[in-house]
Parts: sequence; C-alpha cells; structure tokens
Amino acid sequence: MNKKLMALQKQMVDQKIDLVYQDNPNSVAYFTNFESNPHERIVAYVVTQDDHFLFVPSLEESEAVQQSNVDNVYSYTDDEDPWLIIQNEAEKLVDQVNLIAVDEGNLTVERYFNLQNYFNTDNFTNITSFIEQMRLVKTEDEIEKMLVAGKLADEALEIGRKLLKEGITEQEVAAEIDMEMKKRGVSEMSFSTLVLFGDHAASPHGNPGERKLKKNELVLFDLGVIIDGYASDVTRMVAFGEPNERANELYAIVRKAQEKAQEAVKPGIRAGTLDQIARKVIEDAGYGDYFTHRLGHGIGKTAHEFPSINEANDTILKEGMCFSIEPGIYIEDEIGIRLEDCVYVTKDACQSFTTTSKDLHIIS
Amino acid sequence: MNKKLMALQKQMVDQKIDLVYQDNPNSVAYFTNFESNPHERIVAYVVTQDDHFLFVPSLEESEAVQQSNVDNVYSYTDDEDPWLIIQNEAEKLVDQVNLIAVDEGNLTVERYFNLQNYFNTDNFTNITSFIEQMRLVKTEDEIEKMLVAGKLADEALEIGRKLLKEGITEQEVAAEIDMEMKKRGVSEMSFSTLVLFGDHAASPHGNPGERKLKKNELVLFDLGVIIDGYASDVTRMVAFGEPNERANELYAIVRKAQEKAQEAVKPGIRAGTLDQIARKVIEDAGYGDYFTHRLGHGIGKTAHEFPSINEANDTILKEGMCFSIEPGIYIEDEIGIRLEDCVYVTKDACQSFTTTSKDLHIIS
Repeated sequence: MNKKLMALQKQMVDQKIDLVYQDNPNSVAYFTNFESNPHERIVAYVVTQDDHFLFVPSLEESEAVQQSNVDNVYSYTDDEDPWLIIQNEAEKLVDQVNLIAVDEGNLTVERYFNLQNYFNTDNFTNITSFIEQMRLVKTEDEIEKMLVAGKLADEALEIGRKLLKEGITEQEVAAEIDMEMKKRGVSEMSFSTLVLFGDHAASPHGNPGERKLKKNELVLFDLGVIIDGYASDVTRMVAFGEPNERANELYAIVRKAQEKAQEAVKPGIRAGTLDQIARKVIEDAGYGDYFTHRLGHGIGKTAHEFPSINEANDTILKEGMCFSIEPGIYIEDEIGIRLEDCVYVTKDACQSFTTTSKDLHIIS
Repeated sequence: MNKKLMALQKQMVDQKIDLVYQDNPNSVAYFTNFESNPHERIVAYVVTQDDHFLFVPSLEESEAVQQSNVDNVYSYTDDEDPWLIIQNEAEKLVDQVNLIAVDEGNLTVERYFNLQNYFNTDNFTNITSFIEQMRLVKTEDEIEKMLVAGKLADEALEIGRKLLKEGITEQEVAAEIDMEMKKRGVSEMSFSTLVLFGDHAASPHGNPGERKLKKNELVLFDLGVIIDGYASDVTRMVAFGEPNERANELYAIVRKAQEKAQEAVKPGIRAGTLDQIARKVIEDAGYGDYFTHRLGHGIGKTAHEFPSINEANDTILKEGMCFSIEPGIYIEDEIGIRLEDCVYVTKDACQSFTTTSKDLHIIS
C-alpha cells in the first residue's frame, strides 16, 4: 500500500485535479523511491486520480525500474520530444485533462509553458504547499533514515576533531572528513562541509580555504551527510588549546539559546516562537545584532526544506516535523560561534538526530 | 569595462526590455563573478538598460560585495519580503517597467508569478536562449579557467589509477580522489565521481558502491572538478590486468568513434554531425544499439550546459564553444566502455582540456 500516493490522489479527487506533474528530483524520490540527478534532462512523476507513471531519460530507465515503486516507467532518448511522450501516456489514463496541478515552487517557467502547450490548457493549480505539507511531517521510516544520517554526522565530527593539529588547513580537514564519509557509503554531503578556523568562523557561510590552524584558535564544524536519500546537519565548536574568556562567554550564551529553544519544542508550539526564545537569550546578553540569521531550517531529503524556523513563521509544530536549531553570534574579524542540532518533534518534546555533546570540546 | 553586461544591455535596448531578472546561480556568477549556492533563498541579478544591482540574502552580503563586480548590492533578511525590496530598488532605476525579461529555463513558476504581481505586469519575454548563446561561446578568460580544471582532472585520473589494487572498493577509490582534489582547492567535483569496476561500467550512470576490484577487470573513471567557478569532465578506462580480446575490440571501436568525432570539430560544423560521425563508427562495427546516449554535452560553469551534442542539434559550432565528446558501448551484465574528452573549438579545429593519453592504460 502506497500511503503517499493515496494521500496525493485523495487531494486530487477533493480538488478535482485530473493530473499532477512533478519533476523536482527530491519530490519524485519522495513518492517513488527513485533517486536521480537529471541535470537538464527530465525525470517526472505523473499522477492521475487512479494511476501514475514515472518518466525518465532512457539512460536511467533500468535504475528507475529497479528502484522505484512504480510499475509503469516510460523513457525518452535525447532525440525524442519528452513532452509528446508525457502527453500521450497521460492521455491514455484520463479522458479529459481539465485541471493540472504542478509544483510551482520548483517547476521552471519553460516546462510550465510546455505543459500548457502540449495539454492545450491554461487551467493549472499549484500543489507546492500540499507537497511541502506532506513532506513536512516525516514518517517513521523517514526518521529511521535520518537517524542513520545523524549518526554518521556524529562520526564525522569525531573524525574532524582527531585531524586537528597545528598547520593543517581548513580544506584538508574538510576533504578528509568527506572522504571518510564516502568510504562509509555516503552518496554526498548534505552541503559543502564547513571547517572554519578562528575569526573565519565569523562568516556564517564562509568556505574552507588554505588557512592553517594555529594554537588557541576555535574551530567550527558544520556538516552533514546524505545517505539513503536523507540528510543530516550538525554544528559543533572545538577549542584547539585553551579558549579565552571571551570565547567561553559567547559560547555559553549561544549554548543557552540553543538549549532553551530545543527544550521548548513540542507539538502545538509556533515555529517562530522557537526563534524568539533563542533570540531573546542572545539579545538579553547584548549580542542581538550579531545573531544575523533565522534560528533554523527544515531538514529531510535535503538539508534545506520546510519548516523555516524564523520569527515570522506561524507554522504550528506537529509530531514528525524535523528542523535545525542553530543560533550563532558572529563578530566580524574577531569570532564566530554557532551550535546546531537537528531534531524531530515527538509526542511531547523533541529528539535530536545527533548525540555529540554540546560541551565546548577542548583539545589541549 | 564589463563586456558581458554591455552585451546584455545592448540586447535590452534592441528588444525594448526595461528589466532583466536572473536568479540562476551560475548565470548570476557568469555576469557578476559572485559564486553562490542560495538553496531556497534568492540571489538575483537585476539589470536595467543603464544600471544593475545584485540582490542577496543578508548572510551573503559581505561576500557579495567583496567578490562581485557590482557596486550596488542589496540584501534581505529572513524576515523581510525579498520581492518588495527588488521591486523598490528596480523602480528607482527605471521610470516605467513595460517589459521584463526572465530566464524561463531556470526561473521557477512561483518566482515568475511574484514578479508579475510585484511589477504589476504580465508583459514578459524569455531571455534563456540569449543567455545560453552568450554562455555558449567562452571568453579567453573562461577557457584559461577550464584548462586549470582540466589539468586537475588529469591529475585526478592519475591519482585514481595509482589507488587501484585488488580488493579496494569503487567508493574508496572515488572518495580518495575527491579528497585529493579538495586538498588542492577544488570547491566541489563537477558531479559525483564515477569509479566503476567490470560489468558495473555497463550502467552509464551507475554509482560507485562496495564492489571490490578483482584481477583482470576494467575500471571506468568519469570525473571532473569545479575550480574558480569552472568545470572539467573526462572519462578514461584502465585495465587492471591484461584486458581480454573482447575488451580490446570494443575499446578500439569506442576510441575510433571518439577520435573521429574530435578530429571533425571546427567552426562551421553542425553539432549534430559530430554525433553522427561517432555513431556511424559504432554502428558500422555492429554495436549501434549499445551506444545509448548522445555524444556529448556542453561544459563551462557546470558540467552540463549547452551545446548538446546530439544528432538533432543544428547548432553551428563557433570558436570558443566547449563540449564533451564521449561515445560508449554498454552491454548489460558484461561490459561498459566509454572514452571522453572535453574540447574547446579553436580557429580551425579543437583543443582538449585534458591531456591524459587515450591508450587503454594497463596495470599488469
């Protein structure tokens, strides 16, 4: 029984939608289990009220048949017109296509116009938020996979800590972490592994470079892996040598902000409230201007999805939602501190996907 | 003098376009030199007939100011409405926005509707093919960068070959290659590094797994790096032990197809003709059904862009165009052979970005 497909088809009946067209690789994988990276080619999942098919480049056909839960897999070669095939196959399944639903948040305008032309209609509706809402609440199976990804992230942090020595560069540490993860079967990192030394960590999105580690610097690790189609994401700081008073002070503030927000998570709470709780701790300590981003982002098949944990987000948390809690303080040319766990909402609180201690780890 | 901006603005004047909105990260970087990976946030480049600005998440503002060639960088925080800021800043630069050009091939429908609403117009035109045409012909500066990326790909092949030993897994080899590249400053691989042993190479898009290398197997490497915003891509085969007759036969066919196509490259030739030349060699040898994909793809800021080298493509090659030439023969459960160089079109022929020998490298 394919519960995800059933939920989508129920929505289609309710909304009188004849056809759903999706080509976001993550959403396609969410519904069909077929993971792909089609670049400019098309991998699409087409659903009618009582049927569905997967459409892939011919190169990917045998993988799609093997991996997916869809019986009908159609394909196209580089010389064929993909839209004609999609139209033909879809029209075998529906008498008349009156209303098409697409994922406006991910579909390109070009493909949208192709659908308009080939199905000869401009009667479209947007299914982005329905799909986001579905993907927002993870199933037990998804959470199992995310726990595996979290465990590997903990391991990656440990590997990173052990690599630290005077003179090693940020990019050397990041490269070794990635290699060890790939040897463990990780298909890719959730995002470019961040290893930042000293004041370089003051840049919230800085990239590891040739900077060499010096005695008495802080090190920021922000990393995660994708395994079996699901992502992890965690941030920890390590003091390479004794941290100074300022570092300890700021770390304690960020930790308090992170923990207070994490402790507040439970079903029924507004997402934005978590941001406010963490932000208040940092503001009260006098560093509000230096916490320059939202508290967190959703996580699941990717490291950046819904729910966004920002002050303005009125989403009410439900059991099974998954997101990061990652306050930070960034003082340019001086210091950057961030602490992050990703959690899933349980019946009455939350659980973290990673278990690495939140103590500032000191290598002396 | 910003030649790319000038070319775009000339097109705008010719087409009476008041505003160009682009948010594809590669195109934004192409015009502004600002490389970004904004996920669901917006990094946009907005151009009027006589001005331009870059719009970024506030997190990226200082990087954008440092890296980009744009004087006016505006930003938004997670709590602000990005469209309102874009609209306000744009309307300071143009009296009346009558016609907006967007990159339909990359813009999402959701963002397109936002532009319609905020600028209160549905008068849009598509600038995708103009931008593709611009990006299609590389500047000398771009080719310099791609030669650097190509040289690293050659190095990666050599690293990969040296790692081969009985019992090592595909993913171990791939992970070590990636690590060595990252240590050399590569920001990311052009795509997931492919290392495939024996009949696994018969899957043109297979993923490296836990398969162990055995004596007398062929090894396929397909890899590339992105450095300084430009990509490389190369495929070579290695025989781990003496190749059998069949392997030698098929390799010779693929090599002949690759070389004949590469030798035919010069300005004035139809892109599709190259595909036909290579395909004919493989068809004449009796393996046409086993060459299951187009001959190649364009390369530049990414490893998959225009021109597509497929039979149907009527693009006439010009000096400065860059693409892969990568015929293959894939016989399921038995053997997979591919050979690939990426080239740039010169005044009267082409040059490869990689220089690794096309001989079947034998490790005996």
